[in-house]
Amino acid sequence: MSNSPIITLTTDFGYEDPFVGVIKGVILTINPVANIIDLTHGIKPQDIREAALTIGMSYEFFPDGTIHIVVVDPGVGSSRRPIIVMADRHFFVGPDNGVFSHIYNISRETLQVINISSEHYFLSPVGSTFQGRDIFAPTAAHLSKGINISNFGDPITDFHTIPLPFPQMRDGNTLHGEVIYIDRFGNAITNIRTSEIDKLYSGGPEGVLKVIFNGKEIPLKNFYSQVDDRNIYSLINSSGYLEIFVYRGSASSEYCISIGDTVDIILTEKPAL
Amino acid sequence: MSNSPIITLTTDFGYEDPFVGVIKGVILTINPVANIIDLTHGIKPQDIREAALTIGMSYEFFPDGTIHIVVVDPGVGSSRRPIIVMADRHFFVGPDNGVFSHIYNISRETLQVINISSEHYFLSPVGSTFQGRDIFAPTAAHLSKGINISNFGDPITDFHTIPLPFPQMRDGNTLHGEVIYIDRFGNAITNIRTSEIDKLYSGGPEGVLKVIFNGKEIPLKNFYSQVDDRNIYSLINSSGYLEIFVYRGSASSEYCISIGDTVDIILTEKPAL
Amino acid sequence: MSNSPIITLTTDFGYEDPFVGVIKGVILTINPVANIIDLTHGIKPQDIREAALTIGMSYEFFPDGTIHIVVVDPGVGSSRRPIIVMADRHFFVGPDNGVFSHIYNISRETLQVINISSEHYFLSPVGSTFQGRDIFAPTAAHLSKGINISNFGDPITDFHTIPLPFPQMRDGNTLHGEVIYIDRFGNAITNIRTSEIDKLYSGGPEGVLKVIFNGKEIPLKNFYSQVDDRNIYSLINSSGYLEIFVYRGSASSEYCISIGDTVDIILTEKPAL
Repeated sequence: MSNSPIITLTTDFGYEDPFVGVIKGVILTINPVANIIDLTHGIKPQDIREAALTIGMSYEFFPDGTIHIVVVDPGVGSSRRPIIVMADRHFFVGPDNGVFSHIYNISRETLQVINISSEHYFLSPVGSTFQGRDIFAPTAAHLSKGINISNFGDPITDFHTIPLPFPQMRDGNTLHGEVIYIDRFGNAITNIRTSEIDKLYSGGPEGVLKVIFNGKEIPLKNFYSQVDDRNIYSLINSSGYLEIFVYRGSASSEYCISIGDTVDIILTEKPAL
Repeated sequence: MSNSPIITLTTDFGYEDPFVGVIKGVILTINPVANIIDLTHGIKPQDIREAALTIGMSYEFFPDGTIHIVVVDPGVGSSRRPIIVMADRHFFVGPDNGVFSHIYNISRETLQVINISSEHYFLSPVGSTFQGRDIFAPTAAHLSKGINISNFGDPITDFHTIPLPFPQMRDGNTLHGEVIYIDRFGNAITNIRTSEIDKLYSGGPEGVLKVIFNGKEIPLKNFYSQVDDRNIYSLINSSGYLEIFVYRGSASSEYCISIGDTVDIILTEKPAL
Repeated sequence: MSNSPIITLTTDFGYEDPFVGVIKGVILTINPVANIIDLTHGIKPQDIREAALTIGMSYEFFPDGTIHIVVVDPGVGSSRRPIIVMADRHFFVGPDNGVFSHIYNISRETLQVINISSEHYFLSPVGSTFQGRDIFAPTAAHLSKGINISNFGDPITDFHTIPLPFPQMRDGNTLHGEVIYIDRFGNAITNIRTSEIDKLYSGGPEGVLKVIFNGKEIPLKNFYSQVDDRNIYSLINSSGYLEIFVYRGSASSEYCISIGDTVDIILTEKPAL
């Protein structure tokens, strides 16, 4: 027996309406052995940027060959194209509105993008407001049955991307980044990654890292419970991102942190002993 | 290998408590190969009408033979009957409190309703507050193993229905309907369907459709992003219902729309060119 | 074909972030045939006590051999140990912070607790903030493939427990308990169980049970819809716990009930006829 093909779902549909359930019904009608996994349906309504970050940071934890449906689609029903993206041995199905911008950055050389145009794979008739059900779900379901992506339409190279915030190097010793995500616990995750922090050290002397937020230094720790007060701290989280936290509290609400707030990490000279 | 039988769940249990998880445990204990799919657990507490609409508008997107459990059950523990409904090649399991009223309308001729009384299929002992766990889940699980519905109890014809709002024809050119559902995006879905709008045209002259809400005309569009302001508009959505929307906004909160608000759609004479 | 091994998830991750989806990806990468079931992700952030109650009251509804992952883990990244608990023919995987305190009470004689230390089963490298992904998910996935628990580390007996509230017998005729859980409907579930109520009768005369909350008697009913007003009532719920409710209302919000509020149940003499 071969393993069930995995299809993940990332949407802004929330958990109150039956939309997600209906999408699963459509998939199972076409491919009864698909294993459908919710990544999240809690993307803020129509927030393409959040969806792009979420799928970009999560897909690699699934097996090769997984098909990821992403439906955050303010332009549904317009002429914006439905697409399949193949990258890094994963498949992605959704609207061509920038929701896969993170994926495009990851693996330029293996990247293939198909404009889905083979309407015989669609649910009929296709409506104007729920193409997650009518186009994306059936496309992913047929794809999961082993149909080659070339059957769904022609390759395109002019796919849409949205600007994603990358940290900037300043003065040779400073990375200037920003908060890109706030999780349920109020932790503020920045766009500064260990791979970029490593570059601060290149060729230079050893030193000590300082994190500056709102003009104030925030001590850099190794894990949450290393502190026992409710002050603001930072650490490198399990995905390699610089994160601002309050132990057993919410950094976001207690220190009024919002997405887009800027953060600096500076390599300073080691103080003389 | 035959496909896994599908069991969907529609409840007002929400996502905080472990009730839904426990129901899944009970099902898998009886039928380990059941494929359990959440339709939604976000029905407003004890809102039988919302549950009836939700399952009525969603079931057909699942494969024939799917078993749908619906547990919105203010009378749990009382003498209201547990039932199995067979209609349109689907099965429905839940309380006889009107939650299947939409289903009854769909396929009168193929309809069968069974009063579940075979207690040896129940979880033992049956409690008074959680019959989703003790009666509905085990019934659906045994049903998914291929047991005939006649084994669960006797047919009944006096099942309970609740009044569902249907649009009224007025003056030969007007459909008078109402808002029946508001989704996560604040879109207000009415009970006026394309099939009824088509009747406005029957035998009469061609004309132009006008949507009137709160005494004001609301332009009728084809898809959301056809407009670029934050005014109120209408369209026929992907399920064939007249829907009121604000592009990238919430019609419901920005225009104070509630369930039960009335809407008219009028066929007017085409203006002379 | 053997049945898919079941892995349940109980966390405080909520439904907005992709954390739960990522955990599922990690599990399916290791064991593609695992059947992953959400028990709940709505545990209040870092509320170990609520998690302990939730898994303790729910696990038994799953088949023997089920693996239950519980991740409510304020001390993640510190030296608190990751553990596997085997009890009552179920497996439990999570942090050694008391989250399995209820489980320890259930079956002392069959209990085995393993300190997970075999790092070759972990996702590499293990980070400091998301050990649900890096340690607990891979451990559960490998366990679901039939690897013996002794391979994951050494047995321990000094596992951590948290105090759980048990009702106290007073004056030979009174059980003094407290509210331990409030569900979505506002029902207040107490720690007083039928098994303890039965002890009130032992050896004594027959009598009538009185429930006292906030100095006032609350009538004891058999099921919710037995009443038709909005007063406060009590019943024994389907899990055998004394529960305080308002029919079609929220006892918790209408009568300001909080976790920890005390409740007495008293066996009084039967009034003379």
